[in-house]
Amino acid sequence: MPEEDDNTVYIGSKPPMSYVLAVVTQFSGDRDEVHVKARGKAISRAVDVAEMVTRDHVEEADVEDIEIGTDEIETDEGDSMKVSSIQIDLAR
Amino acid sequence: MPEEDDNTVYIGSKPPMSYVLAVVTQFSGDRDEVHVKARGKAISRAVDVAEMVTRDHVEEADVEDIEIGTDEIETDEGDSMKVSSIQIDLAR
Repeated sequence: MPEEDDNTVYIGSKPPMSYVLAVVTQFSGDRDEVHVKARGKAISRAVDVAEMVTRDHVEEADVEDIEIGTDEIETDEGDSMKVSSIQIDLAR
Repeated sequence: MPEEDDNTVYIGSKPPMSYVLAVVTQFSGDRDEVHVKARGKAISRAVDVAEMVTRDHVEEADVEDIEIGTDEIETDEGDSMKVSSIQIDLAR
């Protein structure tokens, strides 16, 4: 999974500040909207990142929309497994 | 923190099915709206619970609104700490 794709930042298992920096970098360019996406246990970290960005780093940005869903992923054993997902849209 | 308060279900560290059951029980009564709330690492589980309820258990229910925020909590040492929160409103 790429960490940044256009104006999307995918949240993984690094410390939240890595992703905060990625989002802030997008806003520092010409982006007015950044999508923060995560699956499974990283969902909590995605909310942390969105809160840290809008609260402390890009004050004119707000949460515009939040969607949750379920993705079907394939395990290493070839089984399919359901995992929750979130997309948080930040905009200024 | 109470586990159920009116039509609110607070997500803690139990297996997701405990909370799915609590939400389904609320809908089985006369509730048309149930709020699922969580903080910190339990946020991912709250999304799992909302997805399991609307996908598999109360098919006429949908996610109506999602809000995220930051709560200030006090640690055992008396320090204050910021923790992310989520409220997922399910309605039918």
